[in-house]
Amino acid sequence: MILGVGLLGGSIGLAAKSKLKSVKIVGYGHSDGSAALKAGAVDRWENDLERAVRWADFILIATPVQVIAPTLSRIAGWVQPGTVVTDVGSAKAAIVSAGEAAIRPPAAFIGSHPMAGGSKAGVAAARADLFEGAACVVTPTATSDPAAVGRVRDFWQALGGRVIEQDPVEHDRLVALASHLPHALAAALMAVQEPGSIDIRGKGLVDTTRVAGGDPALWREIFAMNRGNVLAAVERLERELATFKQALANGDDAAVFAWLDEQAKRRNALG
Amino acid sequence: MILGVGLLGGSIGLAAKSKLKSVKIVGYGHSDGSAALKAGAVDRWENDLERAVRWADFILIATPVQVIAPTLSRIAGWVQPGTVVTDVGSAKAAIVSAGEAAIRPPAAFIGSHPMAGGSKAGVAAARADLFEGAACVVTPTATSDPAAVGRVRDFWQALGGRVIEQDPVEHDRLVALASHLPHALAAALMAVQEPGSIDIRGKGLVDTTRVAGGDPALWREIFAMNRGNVLAAVERLERELATFKQALANGDDAAVFAWLDEQAKRRNALG
Repeated sequence: MILGVGLLGGSIGLAAKSKLKSVKIVGYGHSDGSAALKAGAVDRWENDLERAVRWADFILIATPVQVIAPTLSRIAGWVQPGTVVTDVGSAKAAIVSAGEAAIRPPAAFIGSHPMAGGSKAGVAAARADLFEGAACVVTPTATSDPAAVGRVRDFWQALGGRVIEQDPVEHDRLVALASHLPHALAAALMAVQEPGSIDIRGKGLVDTTRVAGGDPALWREIFAMNRGNVLAAVERLERELATFKQALANGDDAAVFAWLDEQAKRRNALG
Repeated sequence: MILGVGLLGGSIGLAAKSKLKSVKIVGYGHSDGSAALKAGAVDRWENDLERAVRWADFILIATPVQVIAPTLSRIAGWVQPGTVVTDVGSAKAAIVSAGEAAIRPPAAFIGSHPMAGGSKAGVAAARADLFEGAACVVTPTATSDPAAVGRVRDFWQALGGRVIEQDPVEHDRLVALASHLPHALAAALMAVQEPGSIDIRGKGLVDTTRVAGGDPALWREIFAMNRGNVLAAVERLERELATFKQALANGDDAAVFAWLDEQAKRRNALG
């Protein structure tokens, strides 16, 4: 069962239907489900959340990130024994705490964060191959049921994801570096542009700022849920910029080269 | 005549041969020219710089940026009356000063900066379509001969470029924002990554840091030639980050949203 069938939930539905042959997917969300049914992302739409939850043996929450924890509390009483609940939220510590408090054995909550998305929101933009090769982080804790962790890992792997396990708190620190900081930087880079600089832009500016085109309401919530880690990541970047500036201002071009060379090697290792 | 036949010089040769039917292109550079001839980027290779310069009615300098001004002084005495000399350097003020001092009427120097490139250097990576739709900045001054400016504009336009005129000093301020700052930021963003954050990278980090994979020796020279403007651009970005950090730290998510919303609109207007 998919709760919240937008770009991510819809892509999960399409991918699961294409990769997991015998699966039957029920969708639930704030819409009437016609777009999700039209896109082929779900087999059936359910307007009664309790009935949908009671029916499901695997529940995937793909609502906006700030709605995930309240949703977990809301559905907790209806989740059946043995059912595994997971989600797709970009920040995990608070969600995993809420999930583990709400969903008790013999049901289980295991957090997930697939590193995939797109510039267009909504189920109409969903794609069955969205998770092909994408890092799909699974964030169990010391108390997680290994069988439930295995089901969540197997799910993302079946969808084509590259499964990585991380502690939820450590995940939030790392994802601030890998995803939230790039977004803030891309926005800051747009903020300093002028008509004349935009006029002469090359592929460099276009690529470097691409993520800044993402949904500002979604990103407000992501930043709010990972506030401390995002602030620490920005400060770490500021220290790098200060070192670069000092070398450049001092005419220490050998230091500038050494820094650029190191980062070029690291970047090119990403492929 | 193309002086320095690497990625840019080679792509100019390929594009000119494909778009300007009757043109004959001679190449000169530090190599024996076999790679440029094999790539089809030049019609003939010349090992004698004086002979190549005396022969040419249009000279394009595509050497490393720090070599352009010395090259202009070196060839000045051989440039024929009516010949137009241009270049592809990323920073223009110093090169245009050197070019106007060295190349006197009835010959002319007019600076250019095509906003195109690639992650691979060398003529083997050259492409005839590299300038299709690319901003090609032409930087005349008050004393430039309008006919010479017209020849340089027409040249880039024939290669598929979108020609933009800018004052050389203003160009250097604007290109620091549009190109040099994104490079410094991409490198700084790589510098703060850890194995765990690189492991969970999505398309966002990969796109945002792409330019950091560029040739560090080239970028050391670009930063050195545009030092003051790059420092000012980094400081402007630091002020944007400080504003973002303050809003985030204060829990002023409405201000975070307003900033993200503004930058998303500006980014999406780039297409």
